[in-house]
Amino acid sequence: MKKEIKMDFIKEYKKEKIRYEEFKNDPIKLDISRGKPSKKQVDYVASVFKKAEIEFDLYSNRTGIDKQDVGNYGLLPGITELRQLFGELLDLPYENIIIGGNSSLSLMYDILSLNLMFGNMQSKTPWYNLENRKFLCPSPGYDRHFMMTEYFGFELITIPMTPQGPDMDMVESLVKSDPMIKGIWCTPLYSNPDGYVYSDETVERLAKMSTAASDFRIFWDNAYFTHHLVPNKVNKIKNIIKLCEKYNNADRVYQFSSTSKISFPGAGVSLIASSKANIEHIQNNFKYRIICYDKINMFRHAIVFRTKADVDSHMEKLAEFNRPKFNSVLEILDNELAEFKNYLHYTRPEGGYFISLYTMEGCAKRTYQLCKEAGLVITTVGDTYPYGKDAKDSNIRIAPTFPELDELNKSISLLACCIKIAILEKLTDN
Amino acid sequence: MKKEIKMDFIKEYKKEKIRYEEFKNDPIKLDISRGKPSKKQVDYVASVFKKAEIEFDLYSNRTGIDKQDVGNYGLLPGITELRQLFGELLDLPYENIIIGGNSSLSLMYDILSLNLMFGNMQSKTPWYNLENRKFLCPSPGYDRHFMMTEYFGFELITIPMTPQGPDMDMVESLVKSDPMIKGIWCTPLYSNPDGYVYSDETVERLAKMSTAASDFRIFWDNAYFTHHLVPNKVNKIKNIIKLCEKYNNADRVYQFSSTSKISFPGAGVSLIASSKANIEHIQNNFKYRIICYDKINMFRHAIVFRTKADVDSHMEKLAEFNRPKFNSVLEILDNELAEFKNYLHYTRPEGGYFISLYTMEGCAKRTYQLCKEAGLVITTVGDTYPYGKDAKDSNIRIAPTFPELDELNKSISLLACCIKIAILEKLTDN
Repeated sequence: MKKEIKMDFIKEYKKEKIRYEEFKNDPIKLDISRGKPSKKQVDYVASVFKKAEIEFDLYSNRTGIDKQDVGNYGLLPGITELRQLFGELLDLPYENIIIGGNSSLSLMYDILSLNLMFGNMQSKTPWYNLENRKFLCPSPGYDRHFMMTEYFGFELITIPMTPQGPDMDMVESLVKSDPMIKGIWCTPLYSNPDGYVYSDETVERLAKMSTAASDFRIFWDNAYFTHHLVPNKVNKIKNIIKLCEKYNNADRVYQFSSTSKISFPGAGVSLIASSKANIEHIQNNFKYRIICYDKINMFRHAIVFRTKADVDSHMEKLAEFNRPKFNSVLEILDNELAEFKNYLHYTRPEGGYFISLYTMEGCAKRTYQLCKEAGLVITTVGDTYPYGKDAKDSNIRIAPTFPELDELNKSISLLACCIKIAILEKLTDN
Repeated sequence: MKKEIKMDFIKEYKKEKIRYEEFKNDPIKLDISRGKPSKKQVDYVASVFKKAEIEFDLYSNRTGIDKQDVGNYGLLPGITELRQLFGELLDLPYENIIIGGNSSLSLMYDILSLNLMFGNMQSKTPWYNLENRKFLCPSPGYDRHFMMTEYFGFELITIPMTPQGPDMDMVESLVKSDPMIKGIWCTPLYSNPDGYVYSDETVERLAKMSTAASDFRIFWDNAYFTHHLVPNKVNKIKNIIKLCEKYNNADRVYQFSSTSKISFPGAGVSLIASSKANIEHIQNNFKYRIICYDKINMFRHAIVFRTKADVDSHMEKLAEFNRPKFNSVLEILDNELAEFKNYLHYTRPEGGYFISLYTMEGCAKRTYQLCKEAGLVITTVGDTYPYGKDAKDSNIRIAPTFPELDELNKSISLLACCIKIAILEKLTDN
């Protein structure tokens, strides 16, 4: 029996090798390593902004609710209409929200560096002074989160991810006993790369748990809060800011988001939402760094998105760009990898920007290398784990949004071929 | 003889008090505390941007020299056309320039915090670890500079300003002997608030001087590099980056600027210029904080300002808004204060955003209070010095740009009246 299967593997291996050579003869030259919107999506967004700005005559009408010229200095927390809109979207009073510049990553960096150099209201000492500072990293996760805390000298502690969120037994037990654990990274809705949605219980436990560090903080990167993929299905997560307040941990969480994948990647607006006390603390510190963020760009967004309904219908339109791509990737993987079900699995996200594939242990790097040799760049294996190291060498992050469908399909067929070859090499000792 | 003068003072004092009461009966309600462009100037800039964006059809043509969609992620150092333009304006290769977000203050903050937490290439230890770190503050100067270094825990050392720049004998002697002095703030062209232009000798000595700290840095805030006021008169400062290179101190200087007073205050673009090694060091650190700055906004600026000549003619147009205001302020001060020449003096800047008035010692705060009671807010006295303390209680910063001419004239007449009352109170022991 064992021998028979082995024979099939060899046959399959030879078949895939031939296919692979064909791919190599007609190389792809594509980079699907990052969660980047497609040109068509950006074109569409551009047409929406163009129309709205001309109709409104933005440059001639620069005054909104605040009765201040958005083309001149002022208003550190951002324009009120946009704070109100995000308040509605995140179910929070607008006073709990600051609108930032074009990058939520920068806001995370700025808040982290604020905690490092000055601590927060609950800190006895700035984090920078604690040599053995630590940060929890639910993994796989977002590489830029992990890189940032590594850069800032935190020891990164890997927390396994589950379809309900981080392993909460482990999180609770660690934060309860170790005061050097200062924070945790969370991408609660459509997690990067798995597309998991934190369960109500997970959010509740994060809000409620006891922490040895009185100045512990949750960095809640709600990057995909309105980035749903399934028609008429809106996955929701519990409101962690309200829950933290309920459990007398009001200042525990900094929530971040941006319009990078609603309007323009790299030219949208970002936000921090937090307790009123944290917002005040942040403003009292941010006043040293900036007079105000770009209010003309805020106003542009406020003209295009006047209500939650505007955002919802816009995001439904954007989903039409991405939904066929996610479906197509899953269809190709389902077809190509049906016989490999015992060796691998992958996620079927209902939103966000990624599909996460777990191939046979020890095969991910080899898959990456095979793809690269045939002209396809996928996310560097390991990047989804702290220190860039996937101990199992298994996780492959697929970012389907950037290429158009025909190019994407060819890429995923190549990826599937490479996955199979890498597994078959192991199984056949090649 | 002495008695006779005293009599005149009393007469004058009574006269000004009557005038002051008239001002108070018809209060002004104006804030001229900050260097803020007027609504008319912003309206003009808005009309320029509107026209250029529509003609170019910005949202449909989002690709420039770099052949990358400015509406999508990428290009951390900024778009090449804008780096080239600033290179031309600052007489530097574009590779020495990074374009940032809407705030040069933020870039200064980010570079300072980079030095604090990680040090620079010449640092033996991050500045944060040095408890008695110090920073030189040529004074009077820009309040936000001083506040930032105070906030970051530097001891601020006051360096007297002269019409040629900071007192270089003092600077040289301090930096030569004290390795804890890590930097100096400079606003070399049309200094804030005096409007002084650093002499060639000053710039040369800053580039050449020996510093005990091998990681010493000049924070060169070239905020007004193209903000000239006198027709056909372009004041120039020596190229400090090239001079530092010449004297084997290539990495000594970070140069900052922005278009806040060229395009939109709070919605323009900023820049850092430095040695190639510093630029590389900055990029290697900034990659943890941001994927890219707002390239659509950069592209907007690149469309409006294609060449140095475009910037020059635009700035000549903006000077037409501000020149009459500066002239009017000086005319009023000349007329009102002619008889007080022995007790005060003020600057006659050829560019920038401020006029600096030095009233009789011990009279500035009283002047501020008198203005305030009549509805006029001027820059808080002391703000132009480290720790907000003007030891002589003498410097008053006048920001003429925001109000329109009639309102400005009324304000400056009131200010002159308050200055006289404060001096006369002292002279007459009232």
